[in-house]
Amino acid sequence: MINGEKFMDRPLRWGMIGGGKTSGVGYKHRTGAQRDAANYQLVAGAFDIDEERGRSFGVNLGVTAERCYADYHVMLEEESKREDGIEVVSIALPNGLHYEATKKALEAGLHVICEKPLFFTSEEGEEIKKLAEEKRKIVGVSYGFSGNQMLLQMRDMIAEGAIGEVTMVELQYTHGYGADPEGDTKNPSQQWRVNPKISGDTFVIGDLSTHTIYMSQLILPELKIDQLLCMRQSFIESRKPLEDNAYVLMKYNTGAVGRVWTSAVNCGCVDGHRIRIVGTKASLEWWDAIPYEVSYEIQGEPIQKLIRGSDYLSDACKADERLGVLHVEGLSDAWANVYRKIALAIHAKNNGDEEALAKMVYPDIDAGINGIKWIENCVKSSNQGSVWVDFE
Amino acid sequence: MINGEKFMDRPLRWGMIGGGKTSGVGYKHRTGAQRDAANYQLVAGAFDIDEERGRSFGVNLGVTAERCYADYHVMLEEESKREDGIEVVSIALPNGLHYEATKKALEAGLHVICEKPLFFTSEEGEEIKKLAEEKRKIVGVSYGFSGNQMLLQMRDMIAEGAIGEVTMVELQYTHGYGADPEGDTKNPSQQWRVNPKISGDTFVIGDLSTHTIYMSQLILPELKIDQLLCMRQSFIESRKPLEDNAYVLMKYNTGAVGRVWTSAVNCGCVDGHRIRIVGTKASLEWWDAIPYEVSYEIQGEPIQKLIRGSDYLSDACKADERLGVLHVEGLSDAWANVYRKIALAIHAKNNGDEEALAKMVYPDIDAGINGIKWIENCVKSSNQGSVWVDFE
Amino acid sequence: MINGEKFMDRPLRWGMIGGGKTSGVGYKHRTGAQRDAANYQLVAGAFDIDEERGRSFGVNLGVTAERCYADYHVMLEEESKREDGIEVVSIALPNGLHYEATKKALEAGLHVICEKPLFFTSEEGEEIKKLAEEKRKIVGVSYGFSGNQMLLQMRDMIAEGAIGEVTMVELQYTHGYGADPEGDTKNPSQQWRVNPKISGDTFVIGDLSTHTIYMSQLILPELKIDQLLCMRQSFIESRKPLEDNAYVLMKYNTGAVGRVWTSAVNCGCVDGHRIRIVGTKASLEWWDAIPYEVSYEIQGEPIQKLIRGSDYLSDACKADERLGVLHVEGLSDAWANVYRKIALAIHAKNNGDEEALAKMVYPDIDAGINGIKWIENCVKSSNQGSVWVDFE
Amino acid sequence: MINGEKFMDRPLRWGMIGGGKTSGVGYKHRTGAQRDAANYQLVAGAFDIDEERGRSFGVNLGVTAERCYADYHVMLEEESKREDGIEVVSIALPNGLHYEATKKALEAGLHVICEKPLFFTSEEGEEIKKLAEEKRKIVGVSYGFSGNQMLLQMRDMIAEGAIGEVTMVELQYTHGYGADPEGDTKNPSQQWRVNPKISGDTFVIGDLSTHTIYMSQLILPELKIDQLLCMRQSFIESRKPLEDNAYVLMKYNTGAVGRVWTSAVNCGCVDGHRIRIVGTKASLEWWDAIPYEVSYEIQGEPIQKLIRGSDYLSDACKADERLGVLHVEGLSDAWANVYRKIALAIHAKNNGDEEALAKMVYPDIDAGINGIKWIENCVKSSNQGSVWVDFE
Repeated sequence: MINGEKFMDRPLRWGMIGGGKTSGVGYKHRTGAQRDAANYQLVAGAFDIDEERGRSFGVNLGVTAERCYADYHVMLEEESKREDGIEVVSIALPNGLHYEATKKALEAGLHVICEKPLFFTSEEGEEIKKLAEEKRKIVGVSYGFSGNQMLLQMRDMIAEGAIGEVTMVELQYTHGYGADPEGDTKNPSQQWRVNPKISGDTFVIGDLSTHTIYMSQLILPELKIDQLLCMRQSFIESRKPLEDNAYVLMKYNTGAVGRVWTSAVNCGCVDGHRIRIVGTKASLEWWDAIPYEVSYEIQGEPIQKLIRGSDYLSDACKADERLGVLHVEGLSDAWANVYRKIALAIHAKNNGDEEALAKMVYPDIDAGINGIKWIENCVKSSNQGSVWVDFE
Repeated sequence: MINGEKFMDRPLRWGMIGGGKTSGVGYKHRTGAQRDAANYQLVAGAFDIDEERGRSFGVNLGVTAERCYADYHVMLEEESKREDGIEVVSIALPNGLHYEATKKALEAGLHVICEKPLFFTSEEGEEIKKLAEEKRKIVGVSYGFSGNQMLLQMRDMIAEGAIGEVTMVELQYTHGYGADPEGDTKNPSQQWRVNPKISGDTFVIGDLSTHTIYMSQLILPELKIDQLLCMRQSFIESRKPLEDNAYVLMKYNTGAVGRVWTSAVNCGCVDGHRIRIVGTKASLEWWDAIPYEVSYEIQGEPIQKLIRGSDYLSDACKADERLGVLHVEGLSDAWANVYRKIALAIHAKNNGDEEALAKMVYPDIDAGINGIKWIENCVKSSNQGSVWVDFE
Repeated sequence: MINGEKFMDRPLRWGMIGGGKTSGVGYKHRTGAQRDAANYQLVAGAFDIDEERGRSFGVNLGVTAERCYADYHVMLEEESKREDGIEVVSIALPNGLHYEATKKALEAGLHVICEKPLFFTSEEGEEIKKLAEEKRKIVGVSYGFSGNQMLLQMRDMIAEGAIGEVTMVELQYTHGYGADPEGDTKNPSQQWRVNPKISGDTFVIGDLSTHTIYMSQLILPELKIDQLLCMRQSFIESRKPLEDNAYVLMKYNTGAVGRVWTSAVNCGCVDGHRIRIVGTKASLEWWDAIPYEVSYEIQGEPIQKLIRGSDYLSDACKADERLGVLHVEGLSDAWANVYRKIALAIHAKNNGDEEALAKMVYPDIDAGINGIKWIENCVKSSNQGSVWVDFE
Repeated sequence: MINGEKFMDRPLRWGMIGGGKTSGVGYKHRTGAQRDAANYQLVAGAFDIDEERGRSFGVNLGVTAERCYADYHVMLEEESKREDGIEVVSIALPNGLHYEATKKALEAGLHVICEKPLFFTSEEGEEIKKLAEEKRKIVGVSYGFSGNQMLLQMRDMIAEGAIGEVTMVELQYTHGYGADPEGDTKNPSQQWRVNPKISGDTFVIGDLSTHTIYMSQLILPELKIDQLLCMRQSFIESRKPLEDNAYVLMKYNTGAVGRVWTSAVNCGCVDGHRIRIVGTKASLEWWDAIPYEVSYEIQGEPIQKLIRGSDYLSDACKADERLGVLHVEGLSDAWANVYRKIALAIHAKNNGDEEALAKMVYPDIDAGINGIKWIENCVKSSNQGSVWVDFE
């Protein structure tokens, strides 16, 4: 149970790159990081490409004007000169800028929390991983949904054999907010997502399904994708070669199989984030629309609905509980959990406690690299005509 | 609105082949056919391979003992001698017996209603279609779920442009009742389904997804599958080469794409029959667990739930209404609708009214042949390593 | 499991009083009675006050023209002269005509199945009960919803202590189809319901909640209402003194308490038929919108969803199963169950098997009388200013 | 849209009375107040009756040890001496201590945010209201659920006539976590709730239904209760004279009627917070289990599901949006909204902007007094034998 108590002497001094006034995701970072005023304190930022707007915004957030920087390079330089300079930075920039910003931040001696998809290539990922190791810094990835503690319940139940052997993995993250082509030119946060130079080789595969793939790995740490086949479409022509819809089939190392559907053109869909894990004896299902519930379906028995906050849940699940049963936790609580876990990792790293770190379950650099590989393999398959490819 | 009134002078004299005491589906045929005592009267049957059990059962159903036959060949012969002999016969036999029984029944001058999947090969289907045309007889297929009138609502809305252009077709028919391998040896109705000699080249693809494919064709008469890719598994090893789980990807003639999931090993799933049609403006979704509702989801507007029996539904939908709004109709009502429509087709055929017949929407021989082709193409793809194949 | 087999040598010869072409409920009677062509055969009727329309309708239902009577008195007289005359009659007339028709039918030596609410006064009920006993005939009440077998599951679980001691009974049967005042003058089946001479002292209390009260008694045979308090309104003024909405509070003999909400002006409500039984350890809930499911909620444990057709259900529940799990049964199946049980009761009565009869659970004359008492007590309370009254 | 920007120069200096380590609700206050580090900064507290535990807890929350007080009287005295002393205090004590603490805090010149039910008597409420006016301070009540912005959508739609005239108000707030009598002695947060000296004259009526009553007043500002009738029970005997279950019937000034069900012994219920407002044309329904949705049910039209974050919602609803559509907001977001609105009220009060204040919709002292009156009238009715009483 989380009640706002600190595990560190003081909150980490935290800065943001991007996430300014026009950003949708910036607020999610801040609300996750600053939850309970416990783990992070926002003290600096390079929030915006528009210097004045960025400064005004930062001041409104409580950052002093002098630490609202026009440019993140300046921020990294100036903050490194201060005794009270930032220790960790979040990067809420468009995809194409993640790599350089992460690299510079690590070089400046900072821990980093970066938006997904992490970088454009897994080579970049490996390079950054190596750099982070050298610098003894954490790189976390803001897979915000993954902070929902019911996913840990699924993980623990599956590990204990509650569903038998896993046979199928059914993943979906779809919505319809990309159905209007006008958004591509008029909506700033949509505009760059359909520009391959900034978004990378994919639109929805990177933007949406990397979340769900990480969540599946969190639930199923033993499963690795052996092969996949990806079919992708741009129902809005102008988005080509990027896709606004994709289907993926998967074969896992264990003999399990799976599917992914990700889409920004599933018209009218406002609740399309689902995970179902089927086993030889039972299934487990989670659905973002009722995020406090896991359906546990043992073949031949009554369907069970497990409810967040209940005593019968696993220890790891209950450890992340905040509000108690009866009280809906939502995405802001999930982000708070993710940011809190990254703070725990930073704390362990700062203390050189690699043993503790090794046991932590949070979206780390490997989770980010796996997301990039997911994208690379999907692109490889679809660009070859939607054929089976070995997952590399 | 259907209130039990007859459209023919008297019910058709009807016989059954199979569907005896141990059959699960036999009752669905009878309850569909005999609904309202309006369209079919059960007067003969070769219900069972166990002659005595079949006779006793038939007598309990109200058939005179002499018309409870040990063998359908005998039935066809004996009934053809009677002035009051049967006019139409339903075939509720295991798959491998459909072709011969249908052929013999047509040759005996009967209309036929046959279980799905219709036959083993589309050549057989074409041959029977030709024979039926020569004999001026109807061959209907008992796709029982397709009688749900909300599917007609979807058909009509899509035809009128309510969702824009169709982009995606999402189909699922899964359950978990095949998860127990013991069923394959102990449960008679499961036993033959996993025996390729009797079941044909597939298990769940034929047994389950042919329903859903037909329903999608009912809703989307303009869409044709151009290519598909099928991946299938036997999670219970002994079922090989048949599958207990399959995934299919589809490309349609219009540029739309689609997916099918069919399974008998989706553990704990008791409500896994779903259809979602996505368009450029909106989506329509139907789910067998709440069969009276269609979700109409216009992007950017409140989600609408359309309810069976409401005044605002289409004429074709309302024409099949029986109980009125507030009152749940279930599968027995859907079967009754299918049987009623086949009776209407038989009536038109008997009267030589080909014009009326051409306008009727019901599971006819073409629907049966399409189901066979669906199976053939899935098998072709999966047997070649789950590759794309042209739908032929 | 019901598969259509007969338990009698031949179907009962059955007639209808009312339920003609313009009747909503007539079809439900016919579809329930004639299910499986097993228990009832419609051979006569006085379907309509419009003689010609009634005859034409009856003929369309397969009744011979001569047995389509202009008037039920004539029918009773003429049928009693025939050797193949009707044995049982269903009364689907407006409320005010039930008493006389039932009396006449019993006097003519027929078993009776009558619409709810049974009569206007409980004295009439007791008189008819006595008459039925003298005549050795069954009077059944067409509480159609009560045929849902999941109610028996609730009954059996509660009897076995699955929820502890019953503490609360929460009942609701509401819809919004009376919200339009125009229906009172333009809709024939609505018109008489708001006319106290024909409808009796109540509108929705009699029309709707008598169903739910009976269902609660089916589930909870040990509970008796000791006191109740009823508050009723006519939101459409012209309906006064009848109510289109009512709330009732109840105290039971066991210390349990309860509530009823019944309404025809719960605008937009199409799924408002609910029963929740709370006990000291757990609750059971049934909702007509998903009639195949019972929610079993043990305090402190995962919520369980029990699904119709499953092996784990009680014997009585499974005995009424028709279609098997995965396949939705609806209201027509429930009516078929009610009619079948009344046929079983008639069969036992005809055979003088009072022992079997005593064990049968079906909506009998006592269920009908209890419904009348329910109305009487609600009226007494509300007319005295919505005060507590002893249930008499 | 709320993105964390401040509307004041700096957060209010905030202290807590109660809400310590063993408190369930304390965290909800802190997470609501400290959201976005924008409006409140926790700088002092008298968290616990156990001085050492309270200090240790406060320090863990980031409060300096010297400002973790053993006693709130000391806190009020010491803080008032400091230049940087607290400006606002939250009271998360058991009910019986609210009045004195609020009075002392106002006398110490602080704004107050107090738990519900506010005080024991409405006289106390009026006295405190007068005191607050004299002191020019805000007294807010922590009706946390009321911060859900979809309630404003309901308010705005009803004000615009979207449902016609209101006819019925259906309210429910129930759970089953009081079903175990052991909780009364073993669970500290349950213990005082069943002790009339600390809890007041009611258990669940005050503890649960005051929330829902306030929410109904928020939605329906024009409706006033004219009369009510309350029936309450203690299914756990030892709780008498307090109730663990209550039913209330209501008559409003407009002719509308309503019901309330509140319970801690609705076994197995984990989602029992519901509001349905019925009008002459349509209904609106909100359910805490899917807090992002309002069901808008126009009689005779498809049911509409309105989704939080959508463009089509009212301005007031959208103004409180934080995460955007697709992303579930939960109770922590609702608490944050409540605390933010109280901060806005404090800000206006401090600036003497009574005009702005008059327009604000938030749980103010009147909302608290109404809650007390609700309790008083329920008790009066039930103690007189569950009779109708005029709401005073």
